[in-house]
Amino acid sequence: MTGAARALARCDELGRISARQDALERTHLSPEHAAADAVVAGWMREAGLTTHLDPAGNRIGRREGARPSLPALVLGSHLDTVPDAGRYDGMLGVVLAIEVADRLRHESLPFAIEVVGFTDEEGTRFGDALFGSRAFAGGLEPGRLDASDAEGVTVRAALEAFGLDPGRVGEAARRPEELVGYLEVHIEQGPELLDAGRPLAVVSSIAAARRFDLEVTGRAAHAGGAPYARRRDALVGAAEIVVAVERIAKATGTVATVGRIRAEPGGVNVVPGRALLSLDVRAERDEGRDEAVGRIDAAAREICAARHLGWHLEERYRADAVVCDPALTAAVAAGVAAATGQEPPRLFSRAGHDGMAVAAVTGIGMLFVRCGNDGVSHSPDETVDEGDVGLALDAFEAAVRRLAAERG
Amino acid sequence: MTGAARALARCDELGRISARQDALERTHLSPEHAAADAVVAGWMREAGLTTHLDPAGNRIGRREGARPSLPALVLGSHLDTVPDAGRYDGMLGVVLAIEVADRLRHESLPFAIEVVGFTDEEGTRFGDALFGSRAFAGGLEPGRLDASDAEGVTVRAALEAFGLDPGRVGEAARRPEELVGYLEVHIEQGPELLDAGRPLAVVSSIAAARRFDLEVTGRAAHAGGAPYARRRDALVGAAEIVVAVERIAKATGTVATVGRIRAEPGGVNVVPGRALLSLDVRAERDEGRDEAVGRIDAAAREICAARHLGWHLEERYRADAVVCDPALTAAVAAGVAAATGQEPPRLFSRAGHDGMAVAAVTGIGMLFVRCGNDGVSHSPDETVDEGDVGLALDAFEAAVRRLAAERG
Repeated sequence: MTGAARALARCDELGRISARQDALERTHLSPEHAAADAVVAGWMREAGLTTHLDPAGNRIGRREGARPSLPALVLGSHLDTVPDAGRYDGMLGVVLAIEVADRLRHESLPFAIEVVGFTDEEGTRFGDALFGSRAFAGGLEPGRLDASDAEGVTVRAALEAFGLDPGRVGEAARRPEELVGYLEVHIEQGPELLDAGRPLAVVSSIAAARRFDLEVTGRAAHAGGAPYARRRDALVGAAEIVVAVERIAKATGTVATVGRIRAEPGGVNVVPGRALLSLDVRAERDEGRDEAVGRIDAAAREICAARHLGWHLEERYRADAVVCDPALTAAVAAGVAAATGQEPPRLFSRAGHDGMAVAAVTGIGMLFVRCGNDGVSHSPDETVDEGDVGLALDAFEAAVRRLAAERG
Repeated sequence: MTGAARALARCDELGRISARQDALERTHLSPEHAAADAVVAGWMREAGLTTHLDPAGNRIGRREGARPSLPALVLGSHLDTVPDAGRYDGMLGVVLAIEVADRLRHESLPFAIEVVGFTDEEGTRFGDALFGSRAFAGGLEPGRLDASDAEGVTVRAALEAFGLDPGRVGEAARRPEELVGYLEVHIEQGPELLDAGRPLAVVSSIAAARRFDLEVTGRAAHAGGAPYARRRDALVGAAEIVVAVERIAKATGTVATVGRIRAEPGGVNVVPGRALLSLDVRAERDEGRDEAVGRIDAAAREICAARHLGWHLEERYRADAVVCDPALTAAVAAGVAAATGQEPPRLFSRAGHDGMAVAAVTGIGMLFVRCGNDGVSHSPDETVDEGDVGLALDAFEAAVRRLAAERG
């Protein structure tokens, strides 16, 4: 059995460890978490790793480098799922990390290898995401242990029931000097590689995002009585803004979406006096995101001025980009080139990943594997191709070897 | 006291006959209807008219022409109101018709003069409009007597309580050969004369209208995962259609309004898979209306094809234009020219009027009087200028004299 075939068989096996018969759902500190953790720990031991559960519930397997206590190159992803999940989001990265550790078990490396199966990347049970990787990076928010699930069980109580000490979660935090960097393989969760006909991509950053509420104000009037010279139609202004949002996002290489819109008062025969819209902007870098927002704001201001409309934009959410480490990214790119014979495309990740949290304690590098099925994810329809998974495994191994050679 | 001053004082007097202390509301077959009817009947008698209540509740005053039983030129408007109404919508046309009859009381005319105060133009109490004028024109819909008000009182019961026989409402219908035509003075209910700095306008037609539900279908997708090449964003397509609606309406001299819009599924971070819109189109003529609708449909079809979106348009309402009679309109225009020394502007009425119903039995002509206060109507803020009312009265009288001369 090839490493890729074994990795996919292990994804299938993990995919059967679910809280539901009809769908895959495996949440933080649940009985299924414990079951999956035990299975993964066994695979780690088979790969020659010494393993322990950290105080936050992350499963860690380690093999020392050429000397004991060298800093560790961390390979991993997450073991928890969304409700009605696919089998590859997270799990593929963990099982491939185990395969890489297995392939390198007889090598003498200038760093330790650690494989991490993070818990609670998705935040399905307690509402907020990245519990495991934030704890690993020493960035767990105060009060996070007091969050509770739909049944009113707090994280604190759930940790105890899982056999962990809530007072010791802080001890999951790693120090920067213990770490060389973090590498993660993940399915793309989008169709870009599928469209490009390429199996793998190097991730340049995890997206910068901002969200806004937009308001356009005009004057409501009777659709019969109001001639055009008198109209201040908030919806026509808003429509011009929706069109401008798309144009500006394309021009700036970002993506921007208006997902909600409402016209008030909303009568069939009333010229709208007010329009309310949402705006979601995502970009590879903070500057690109902020440039797109600035241009959208300026265009909307101009559209509204020309139509004698009022304009207001209110920020609701902001996440800065996490830029991947140049040296780790170069190693990943070289690994992909070695495995596929081609320079890989570079994508930015529009979804969040454990690396966003891990970047607070060490540099990160990421490799995306092509999704089948139109790029669908967070769905039982998630698919990957075994050939692609084989290339990902080869590229991942080559990247680690290159980092070893650079440090050796 | 001038005729204009007396007409305005009478509007004030009618404005005090209301079901509410704090606002003007006078509905079909109500006690206030009876009170206003009695007052108007008195004014008709003072103007030398013989008066009766017709079987539908319309107040009619008549003076014979040079010989008994000549066909009648009908002058009028309505006496009922919307809730929280102004004092001039309808009433001004009735009191000016009485003034014209008074001015002509000693003339020998080649037609009888009838002044009509129609009931229930607005449809406030029983939900459907133009009860009085439809009955007058013989076009009352079957089943109309079974409609009921908010208290469950049917039109039938209300007619009886008012002292009218529901079985005889059909006798309100007039025969075409009894009538010369119908002339109505009405406030504009819009700002066009105010903006043009002109006191009076000739009405060319009562608007043609159509209403539609529009549906744009694309594909919902995650705002993060979906690159532009993959997006089929129903809302961006809908926004282009909203902008096109305005452009096409202006180009075709019509007015078109999107008053409602909804994006589905409506998540802040979801590319809309479906957009639902309303469309209201009004035009002077049916052909203009239908051309605008055709061009909007074609533009939307093109927009949606370019974006790989589905497009569906479903008609919800249609009213054909009622075009004013050329000879009556020429008489009104000549009357305005005589009164003001200027050729009047021609407007089409975007609101409905009794003339829409009366046109089924005889030709109609209409004169608009400038509204003050930004053209507001259906509001206690309705205003007219006494000077404008004087010009309207002179123009109305001159129009009737001109028709008499033409027939004489």
